[in-house]
Amino acid sequence: METPTNKIMHKGEQQQQSDSRTAIEHVEISDSTLREGEQYGGAYFTFDQKLQICLSLTRFGVEYIEMTLPMSNSNAEDELHRLVSALRSAKSKSMVLARCHPTDVELALKSGTYGINLFMGTSSYMQKASHGKSLEQVTQLAADNVKFLKSNGCQFVSFCAEDAFRTDIDELLYLSDALNDAGVDRMIFADTVGGATPFEVYKCIHEFSRRSFNFQIEFHGHNDTGCAVANAYAALEGGAHCIDTCVLGIGERNGICSLSGLIARLQTLKPTLLTKYDLKELPKLDALVANILGIPIPHDMPITAPHAFTHKAGVHVKAMLADPHTYEIIQPGDFGIERTLVVASKITGKHAVAHRAMQLSINTLTDDQILLIAEQVRIAASIQPISLQTVDQIIKSFLSK
Amino acid sequence: METPTNKIMHKGEQQQQSDSRTAIEHVEISDSTLREGEQYGGAYFTFDQKLQICLSLTRFGVEYIEMTLPMSNSNAEDELHRLVSALRSAKSKSMVLARCHPTDVELALKSGTYGINLFMGTSSYMQKASHGKSLEQVTQLAADNVKFLKSNGCQFVSFCAEDAFRTDIDELLYLSDALNDAGVDRMIFADTVGGATPFEVYKCIHEFSRRSFNFQIEFHGHNDTGCAVANAYAALEGGAHCIDTCVLGIGERNGICSLSGLIARLQTLKPTLLTKYDLKELPKLDALVANILGIPIPHDMPITAPHAFTHKAGVHVKAMLADPHTYEIIQPGDFGIERTLVVASKITGKHAVAHRAMQLSINTLTDDQILLIAEQVRIAASIQPISLQTVDQIIKSFLSK
Repeated sequence: METPTNKIMHKGEQQQQSDSRTAIEHVEISDSTLREGEQYGGAYFTFDQKLQICLSLTRFGVEYIEMTLPMSNSNAEDELHRLVSALRSAKSKSMVLARCHPTDVELALKSGTYGINLFMGTSSYMQKASHGKSLEQVTQLAADNVKFLKSNGCQFVSFCAEDAFRTDIDELLYLSDALNDAGVDRMIFADTVGGATPFEVYKCIHEFSRRSFNFQIEFHGHNDTGCAVANAYAALEGGAHCIDTCVLGIGERNGICSLSGLIARLQTLKPTLLTKYDLKELPKLDALVANILGIPIPHDMPITAPHAFTHKAGVHVKAMLADPHTYEIIQPGDFGIERTLVVASKITGKHAVAHRAMQLSINTLTDDQILLIAEQVRIAASIQPISLQTVDQIIKSFLSK
Repeated sequence: METPTNKIMHKGEQQQQSDSRTAIEHVEISDSTLREGEQYGGAYFTFDQKLQICLSLTRFGVEYIEMTLPMSNSNAEDELHRLVSALRSAKSKSMVLARCHPTDVELALKSGTYGINLFMGTSSYMQKASHGKSLEQVTQLAADNVKFLKSNGCQFVSFCAEDAFRTDIDELLYLSDALNDAGVDRMIFADTVGGATPFEVYKCIHEFSRRSFNFQIEFHGHNDTGCAVANAYAALEGGAHCIDTCVLGIGERNGICSLSGLIARLQTLKPTLLTKYDLKELPKLDALVANILGIPIPHDMPITAPHAFTHKAGVHVKAMLADPHTYEIIQPGDFGIERTLVVASKITGKHAVAHRAMQLSINTLTDDQILLIAEQVRIAASIQPISLQTVDQIIKSFLSK
């Protein structure tokens, strides 16, 4: 073998030189299935379903559960109080979303929630079409409300800069300065329209995390361009403390960062960050919400999709039998899931057949017979879908030959 | 308003200084629904369905359609020949996947396909558990087969480095040098286990694109950590020419970059790149494959998800009526889709009610009446899901008051 002609740096060296990304030492999750998730066009939760979701989220161990503030609806107000109460002694803390408006703020305080998440649009789009206020007015209102809440016993106040990634960064810094002075506990940077790229998210969040603000940083990102999970991870690389998720990634339009996606992303890079969560609860949580929505878990959902650990191609099955890490970056057992090696398919190979024969305690087949069986399986499966039973029959038919 | 205290650079300045990312000037799509897609645990395509998918992909205008090489199955071999023939005069070119093995290579050549995509695992995992060959042996085999194909009339030969992102970069460069000399037309870098981050993909692809190889670069990325679309975009930023997609993002385990995701990502950043595609065919393509798979289009699918352009929250509906760009980074009309403003929900606000009244040609309601109607809608919808008809009834009941 010739010496590689274009010698370049090794991965470690490269990272030292060009990568100023934060080593992620800590992560918190604020799950918004009950708030953002219910804004999804296909979602409708009854009180009992909300309570079930809450309890399942606490079993998994998310740090915060965000809820919708009921407006002029005493029925919903009562429900909110009951949900907040249910969480009072739980591991997860209740957060309630509120506009920067006295009615909302007082209603939120009255619920007895742990924290209140104020929000207001900051981009020029939001300034014009949403509330009609200048960034200066937004800042004033937000700061006043943060001070009011902090001096009225609210333990944790966050402010969400809606559409932050289409907001002038100088304006965001001006807002952050004022809210830092007002005592805000956390600033949430929201990619409200889901348009930011991971690199843009990293740059923006890093700009704030490297300054000496007292607040923590949270990221909320929509999936309109399929980048919600990657953007959440880029935010952590930029120095964010907390990520907003929804179970199955539901939310307004086509949703936000999925809990499964965030967990998958972190599990591959730094599993020690996740030891505080009960990972085996994740499949149950996804199944619960899918069941409530009346949909299957989408096939693209990391970890919990029905076939997330199914291996079908002949060459894959061979390698998986030798070493599961070959085609799996995540080990299904960590989540209480079993992998599936598909034997009944039109791309089945000899290794899958040999494996199946072994499972059936058949060890008298010759290599030629195994090749013939694999071919028969492929032909049968190319005409119509076949079951494992059909494969077993084909294998057994060779025993009498 | 005080001058912002922490003056920093504007976006443009920042990009000039820190961003060596490639300005994306061109993109090609290699769709692998018929190959990678059929490896999805839940997929089974009949010949007629394959043909339908092919024709729909050509109407949309993808540049390449990748197919599975049939092995020892004359039925499937005949089907492949018919699919390749069907594409001979089409806009999209047929690519056939083949192992670096004489049987495969000859079978692929015989099909009359435009291009052949050789593949082999390059990482230490693949070297050990998949084929048992050293990188030196892989390189020799790949180079020999590339030369054989190029001298036997194959117009386009690509080589896919399977599990490239867990392969030592010096080894990848050694392989690339050899294949470049052998005349390979394109190198495909595959994130086979879906573990790479966008930053890692960018760095690796950029390392190859900045060198003076003669081949083009393609990226194939799995979604095990929810980053397939973002990784595809990072590959383009790094200088890749072509992206592998599947309709709905199906594929082995939980699939690869979805066609809708890639299109959404590019449409928001550089829509001129996409004028060569018939974007209005995208929803039909996703619907076709979802129908064949017997599943709904997943709620997280950009552009084509049932509620991708549904706006539900009260404050959102208000802003959307003033300017659709407020909560949409993609315009649904570009894809022949209509947006939905939900009026029948427990978070309905006065603006949604006023809008609905206007649609019903009712313009005699006072502001107070509209507030009362919105409250009644919210109360009704907090007890059980309600229809638009119920909202209309509530509105009309106020006319007689």
